[in-house]
Amino acid sequence: MTRALVGVDLGGTLIRAAVATGPGTHDEPVRRPTPAAEGPIAVLHAVAAAVLEATGGRAPAGLAMGVPGPLDPGAGVVYAAPNLPGWEGLQAAGLLGAMLGCPVVLQNDANLAGFAEWTLGAGRGTRDFVFVTVSTGVGGGMVLDGELYTGAAGTAGELGHMPVDPAGPPCHQGHPGCLEGVASGTAIALRARAALAAGETSRLAAAGDSLDARDVQAAAEAGDALARRLFEDAGRALGRALGGLVNVLSPEVVAIGGGLSLAGELLLAPLRAALPEIAFAVPLARCRVVVAALGTDSGLVGATAWAARRFGSAPG
Amino acid sequence: MTRALVGVDLGGTLIRAAVATGPGTHDEPVRRPTPAAEGPIAVLHAVAAAVLEATGGRAPAGLAMGVPGPLDPGAGVVYAAPNLPGWEGLQAAGLLGAMLGCPVVLQNDANLAGFAEWTLGAGRGTRDFVFVTVSTGVGGGMVLDGELYTGAAGTAGELGHMPVDPAGPPCHQGHPGCLEGVASGTAIALRARAALAAGETSRLAAAGDSLDARDVQAAAEAGDALARRLFEDAGRALGRALGGLVNVLSPEVVAIGGGLSLAGELLLAPLRAALPEIAFAVPLARCRVVVAALGTDSGLVGATAWAARRFGSAPG
Repeated sequence: MTRALVGVDLGGTLIRAAVATGPGTHDEPVRRPTPAAEGPIAVLHAVAAAVLEATGGRAPAGLAMGVPGPLDPGAGVVYAAPNLPGWEGLQAAGLLGAMLGCPVVLQNDANLAGFAEWTLGAGRGTRDFVFVTVSTGVGGGMVLDGELYTGAAGTAGELGHMPVDPAGPPCHQGHPGCLEGVASGTAIALRARAALAAGETSRLAAAGDSLDARDVQAAAEAGDALARRLFEDAGRALGRALGGLVNVLSPEVVAIGGGLSLAGELLLAPLRAALPEIAFAVPLARCRVVVAALGTDSGLVGATAWAARRFGSAPG
Repeated sequence: MTRALVGVDLGGTLIRAAVATGPGTHDEPVRRPTPAAEGPIAVLHAVAAAVLEATGGRAPAGLAMGVPGPLDPGAGVVYAAPNLPGWEGLQAAGLLGAMLGCPVVLQNDANLAGFAEWTLGAGRGTRDFVFVTVSTGVGGGMVLDGELYTGAAGTAGELGHMPVDPAGPPCHQGHPGCLEGVASGTAIALRARAALAAGETSRLAAAGDSLDARDVQAAAEAGDALARRLFEDAGRALGRALGGLVNVLSPEVVAIGGGLSLAGELLLAPLRAALPEIAFAVPLARCRVVVAALGTDSGLVGATAWAARRFGSAPG
């Protein structure tokens, strides 16, 4: 039996590990809770245990892990992971590799989701592809000239952190007027609360303190004017920003994923309408803007596909 | 004698053609006026004549031409060239190749200037490099993963057409709130005129109807408050937009060229100050933001270097 290639999707609450079975396909994953509060060594031990459960106790031939934060893939070092206390500067690839006795590569989780969409999903068959994920925050991953693009620091693809409005609110990183400050789920919920506090009439008033972007989506689907306007504003800001990316990168496909993409035309109609405000006609005509295909599984698909890419074809 | 590799820089008013003598070096160029008003065939005949003068009458082994407009480098077709009437959809590579009996490749002039800066100038030795040119308009060229990046349509690198402000003025293409609408020489002159028309006191009032960005630069250097504010606003908008590019692309070097870069710290000080408003600390620490090295010669250097890249090393 050949030794396995393994992909791991490390989240702030859940670890998923699976053996690659082909380009972008994998066995049923092993799931374990992430003991984030116990610190990085406890988390890496939990990852190693999940991996060995997935492989039947054998060391993998190679492992790729998606991490929820910026990192240096060449050095295998995590710069920071907001939901994983103590991971700043962690040599995670080296530590996990020593625990498992196999080579380990790291990638940012959004980059791997983009790589998955390129390998098997909405970006399949393209050379230049942009994946943008819109959920609590806004992130992304890009394949340019047929390769996952990570740039000099390894952190490229932070698509939520393009400046779109000097007068706009800050994103959660404190950058004034970033796309994420207008177009994320967090931003939509904040703006809804602000409008209610300012006395605007809306069925969102019934949502109370737990109001989030899903409440806004439900209200918009029921015709609520405030909720519809918030999705229109977010879609329009995304469309303008993605129009700028069409001018800068001329991708063949831009795929929109993440929780807010489930709102469908509520978000996509204003997004598509805003694109030609900014994008030149020629590269826009060569670009398809679509909903991502793989859903929430894309992080794990990306990790197993990346393991296969980095360590050779997946064995049977 | 080996047949020559030739680079051509085609401008709206001047044709320059030169034989490549090494990677990014060339003989003294032949210069001819561009008979733009006589239409594309007359312009291409003038290019061919300049090329044959440069080579001593022999057909080149290969030719690369920079064109002032968006184009499809794979097909050798110009989409449009605002200063060259009749060039929309022109099969310029095929036509010029037939006139000269040699293979011809086209590239956008700003892309070639970026390629020149990467080959011999501010981006030398890097893998991921962004060149932005700030003059009448704002353009750019990018080398990503060690290759000139042009994207699916061939038009990538339009860095002046990122949206920076939903309330901003349109660029000359009519896109509301593009970077070019705030940070170009044209934008600075327009804003100066508007401020004067609104009654603001400034020594720029003396410039009269011919007021342009160079007048604003001279006034700023002399301490004029309005002129200094206009450069600060432009530098700040550029810095925020380039901060977004640092987040998206994580380049090793961003080089600023074009006429407005000659204003030096008037533009660069506010530009550098605005970068960390938007850029993450990690990719910003890995990125140098500098003035371009090659000046106005970069278009021709890029064309000869591109001829060498596409058709083999330059012969002696």
